[in-house]
Amino acid sequence: MKKIVLKFGGSVLYKEEMVLNVERIKEIVETINTLHDAGHKVAVVVGGGKLARVIIQASDVLGHVSTFKDILAVESTRIHALLVIASLQNKAYLLVPRSFEEIGKALSTGKIVVTGGLQPGQSTNAVAALVAEYWGADLLINLTNVDKVYDKDPNLFEDAKPLDELSADELLEIISKQDEEPGKYALFDRVGCEIVKRSNLRLIFTNGSDPKNILRIVDGENIGTVVNG
Amino acid sequence: MKKIVLKFGGSVLYKEEMVLNVERIKEIVETINTLHDAGHKVAVVVGGGKLARVIIQASDVLGHVSTFKDILAVESTRIHALLVIASLQNKAYLLVPRSFEEIGKALSTGKIVVTGGLQPGQSTNAVAALVAEYWGADLLINLTNVDKVYDKDPNLFEDAKPLDELSADELLEIISKQDEEPGKYALFDRVGCEIVKRSNLRLIFTNGSDPKNILRIVDGENIGTVVNG
Amino acid sequence: MKKIVLKFGGSVLYKEEMVLNVERIKEIVETINTLHDAGHKVAVVVGGGKLARVIIQASDVLGHVSTFKDILAVESTRIHALLVIASLQNKAYLLVPRSFEEIGKALSTGKIVVTGGLQPGQSTNAVAALVAEYWGADLLINLTNVDKVYDKDPNLFEDAKPLDELSADELLEIISKQDEEPGKYALFDRVGCEIVKRSNLRLIFTNGSDPKNILRIVDGENIGTVVNG
Amino acid sequence: MKKIVLKFGGSVLYKEEMVLNVERIKEIVETINTLHDAGHKVAVVVGGGKLARVIIQASDVLGHVSTFKDILAVESTRIHALLVIASLQNKAYLLVPRSFEEIGKALSTGKIVVTGGLQPGQSTNAVAALVAEYWGADLLINLTNVDKVYDKDPNLFEDAKPLDELSADELLEIISKQDEEPGKYALFDRVGCEIVKRSNLRLIFTNGSDPKNILRIVDGENIGTVVNG
Amino acid sequence: MKKIVLKFGGSVLYKEEMVLNVERIKEIVETINTLHDAGHKVAVVVGGGKLARVIIQASDVLGHVSTFKDILAVESTRIHALLVIASLQNKAYLLVPRSFEEIGKALSTGKIVVTGGLQPGQSTNAVAALVAEYWGADLLINLTNVDKVYDKDPNLFEDAKPLDELSADELLEIISKQDEEPGKYALFDRVGCEIVKRSNLRLIFTNGSDPKNILRIVDGENIGTVVNG
Amino acid sequence: MKKIVLKFGGSVLYKEEMVLNVERIKEIVETINTLHDAGHKVAVVVGGGKLARVIIQASDVLGHVSTFKDILAVESTRIHALLVIASLQNKAYLLVPRSFEEIGKALSTGKIVVTGGLQPGQSTNAVAALVAEYWGADLLINLTNVDKVYDKDPNLFEDAKPLDELSADELLEIISKQDEEPGKYALFDRVGCEIVKRSNLRLIFTNGSDPKNILRIVDGENIGTVVNG
Repeated sequence: MKKIVLKFGGSVLYKEEMVLNVERIKEIVETINTLHDAGHKVAVVVGGGKLARVIIQASDVLGHVSTFKDILAVESTRIHALLVIASLQNKAYLLVPRSFEEIGKALSTGKIVVTGGLQPGQSTNAVAALVAEYWGADLLINLTNVDKVYDKDPNLFEDAKPLDELSADELLEIISKQDEEPGKYALFDRVGCEIVKRSNLRLIFTNGSDPKNILRIVDGENIGTVVNG
Repeated sequence: MKKIVLKFGGSVLYKEEMVLNVERIKEIVETINTLHDAGHKVAVVVGGGKLARVIIQASDVLGHVSTFKDILAVESTRIHALLVIASLQNKAYLLVPRSFEEIGKALSTGKIVVTGGLQPGQSTNAVAALVAEYWGADLLINLTNVDKVYDKDPNLFEDAKPLDELSADELLEIISKQDEEPGKYALFDRVGCEIVKRSNLRLIFTNGSDPKNILRIVDGENIGTVVNG
Repeated sequence: MKKIVLKFGGSVLYKEEMVLNVERIKEIVETINTLHDAGHKVAVVVGGGKLARVIIQASDVLGHVSTFKDILAVESTRIHALLVIASLQNKAYLLVPRSFEEIGKALSTGKIVVTGGLQPGQSTNAVAALVAEYWGADLLINLTNVDKVYDKDPNLFEDAKPLDELSADELLEIISKQDEEPGKYALFDRVGCEIVKRSNLRLIFTNGSDPKNILRIVDGENIGTVVNG
Repeated sequence: MKKIVLKFGGSVLYKEEMVLNVERIKEIVETINTLHDAGHKVAVVVGGGKLARVIIQASDVLGHVSTFKDILAVESTRIHALLVIASLQNKAYLLVPRSFEEIGKALSTGKIVVTGGLQPGQSTNAVAALVAEYWGADLLINLTNVDKVYDKDPNLFEDAKPLDELSADELLEIISKQDEEPGKYALFDRVGCEIVKRSNLRLIFTNGSDPKNILRIVDGENIGTVVNG
Repeated sequence: MKKIVLKFGGSVLYKEEMVLNVERIKEIVETINTLHDAGHKVAVVVGGGKLARVIIQASDVLGHVSTFKDILAVESTRIHALLVIASLQNKAYLLVPRSFEEIGKALSTGKIVVTGGLQPGQSTNAVAALVAEYWGADLLINLTNVDKVYDKDPNLFEDAKPLDELSADELLEIISKQDEEPGKYALFDRVGCEIVKRSNLRLIFTNGSDPKNILRIVDGENIGTVVNG
Repeated sequence: MKKIVLKFGGSVLYKEEMVLNVERIKEIVETINTLHDAGHKVAVVVGGGKLARVIIQASDVLGHVSTFKDILAVESTRIHALLVIASLQNKAYLLVPRSFEEIGKALSTGKIVVTGGLQPGQSTNAVAALVAEYWGADLLINLTNVDKVYDKDPNLFEDAKPLDELSADELLEIISKQDEEPGKYALFDRVGCEIVKRSNLRLIFTNGSDPKNILRIVDGENIGTVVNG
């Protein structure tokens, strides 16, 4: 039995502008069901995506302070989380936790907990790392739109090399560089990374286009990129 | 000083598919500010709209039970409510109430309360009527996309007549007929209507395309259609 | 294993004016225990009754708005729900949920959830239908004081015929007629009925004077009246 | 401006078995309004009464543990509190606080807070003393069914003497004796008394049959019995 | 299978001024794990201790009302409770309940519930007795710093005799005497004692210096002092 | 009228190991009262300090995951916040908010809101910046134990220069360097800094040893170091 925190966001959830990738969501839900039926325990953190943009753009035009834009983004992730909960139905904790304390209450029921973001000034990657640390997870799997983490942004550098493994410090360094570059190849955020590091979490990035990858990783296959805390 | 509950939804909030009518929202917020500065008290109930559709369609394809579709629709109304709160900022109660009890707590602060829907199986019109009754409102103003209520659906019947005034029973009858017709000229819902009736609330329908109408109604002008409970 | 939502109210709970039918409540609790021990899952929705009247009459004399009368009625149903919870003790979720979200949290524990009403403007029948839909119940059993649903109010019409089966639309029609008649043969409410219809729920009315009927229905016997969504 | 905590229970709320004393409640509400309009601040703690008995008797027959009987009694006090809130409407905090923390939140709104009991194992007298201490009240007025506190139970002892003033220690002693006597002349409870003592609260007992007494006490008249912490 | 409520406080938690007895806490946690793995059910109530003193002294110098000192003391017990929860991790309900209702919610998950105090004016002994009564516990074990309860304070009276067994009434009497003596040999409080009495709870005092005593008591050994409700 | 967020932590709260600086706290509370009486609006964010260390050390020895250490640290800040609330009594919101949403509810009452930390993985500096942004504060004043911010850690570098003014980017750079140095001259954290930057907040560092500095800053005097977002 393994405890797995699964994180995914917009690149997995949406096909194109405002069109949810329903087939993909179905596959992920089936994968979670498979893990659950095999005796594994799963918690899910769902990120934002294109839905949020329409709203945040409006918020921007309306001149709102950034806190509210963050809150609107968080609410969007919760709507995505609800889609997953409704698909898992009674295997899942039926509510989206709205604070870290509610995550604790939800985990205490033994159900599959599906959460979105929690509050302004914090990414869903940080939430995922915190949930993994709090819950004592064996694996934190981050579904992205690339097969591996690269040492540089592959969209900008031709010589970017895919990595099989790296340390949390190396990940922090890659993330730091990204801050200074406009390409916004946002893998993970700094706070999340520091939690991975302080608790030596096992974080694995894999391509979310094939949710079967999750099962392979849980079975111990070496796919994607492993970050060892 | 008057106590006013203001209700509006998708027809006022959106310009077209997924494009929020930011200018309209701004005008409504200015109107609320004007009322507030003149010493009136305002509570706002915001409905759903096109945002919800993308999500609910996905929910439908994913085979979710209707309760979850209702919950997703409620969450969408809350995102709209947040846009209004962020615009009013410290004049408003900063949270969107998530239950009827939270509406009571919010009203107790004396701030402008902005709420969306509350729970499955209940429309935002019913919520608006309940808030008006609970709070002892003088006026419940419903912004729609027509100037008046018609005795029949004007999209279907050429001889539909605009009404200046009607009773809650007459409104109930108009609504009942709509149930049997596919045109979906959804003015108000039955539960909301019964609350208007039982407490003799003063409900006024007016065209939301000109938010100044709100000020005129508060000043006692006879525009739109008045329902006397 | 079946998932059963059990609904009952005043006609089952009270013997006469302000005298609770303790023996009946005991029988119902034993029945729930039997179902539970046989591996079935049960949720319970408890309605109001004579207790509420004393309070609501006082509320009326005190000139309260109807919302408060509804709230007082809801609180009365919660006191009834507590009586059932205290009887089931640790098999039950120990609190009475106070909002639809709390029902979700309660169901997530896997315990027997016992709820009363939720908020003004909504009947416990509507709550029962929502819980059945949300939870994916196989059966929604409504204990009443008659053996069958009649096509008309049997207190008013001698030729009223008992029905073995009817559709949700037929039930809606029966309910609609009742609205116009003073006899107040209140079977179920419109909102509840529409939820039964939209989700094709299996709703069964049976006489609560013999709680063993519940077991018979769960075992597949044809007693009472079946409404097929 | 004075801060006043007003406590009353069954002897004031009920005329006879299950008949609420609506006129008395009205008079008390008018008195609270008068105090409020004169610039005083009021918090109200409402106790139980005959309503609770029907329920608790049933609970007893059903064999419930005492905690649940206490919870049922607390819920009854909350229904009484709601009657007062609905009468004060928007001058009052619209909810009955369900924990001591919620009392803090309610007091923070500046509205008239009306609470019932809080939890098992604690009387509404203790709650009233705690609220008075927490809030820094000038006066804690306890409406009873006698004009004065007696040095012994006047129902049992012919030579019982009415007291104008006593210390918290003397009150404790009177209460201690009552414990050993079956007459149940329950003035106040020990925990409440210890709070009055430790914080030197000004507690005044007066006859609730004339709510005007409250105004007289606030104006400094010497009626009833004063306990000086 | 037995249901056990375990209560301990400062004398067990601290080695000396501000130095937590980490080894002792570890032993207690191991004992709870042993009970849990043997199929017993455990709930834990943790009291205050030296940590609280620094804070309450400051509160005193700052001139705070006693309610706040109680609240600060309660918060200290919650910090102690968190230390136990973090040690039990996923066997425990992950939050410290903040009201009696939250204890009900926590117990409903089936996890080991660890709570501190609940509110001002109430000791953790009273909380422990209420939890034992509410939950239907077979045993309420109170870890103290003496092997037995004495008929008088052994620090003050040379002829104090250790007791193997006593009734709740006898315990009440011992406690009452203590009130009048400055030695503060605080065994248990009056409210807790009355709950033990009214529900005939089985309360056992034992020395917390050897947490193995807990296992012996659960196995039926006669150590410590038994109070039979 | 200005809106001021005041942040202070351990260096201001404690005199020495486990001895609270009660005089300092009194002075700060008086300053807050002065600002309040002059019509300014104040919110307060209180950090941790030496109290937390005893507990976190124990947590460390007990082998807890870091999330729990963070939670224990957050609870310690809340105890500090309670000391401030109890000193301000009815001018303050009486509870310490436990989530960002509760901060919104607290701010909506118009009272002085005093909060500690909110959740694991987030500093009280980040909380202070978020509160300032959310609330639209004119000033975010951070009380430290130095008169000015230095361009390098003055404990390590003799040539460290005090700064009157700097940009958020410059502050970020100073903070980044600190990460790599063991001296732990922790001014502010990165997340807080990014919020200051994105919303162009006015953040002022000043020496907390003289709380009168706060009044001088509000009056427009140039003391301490100003960060312009």
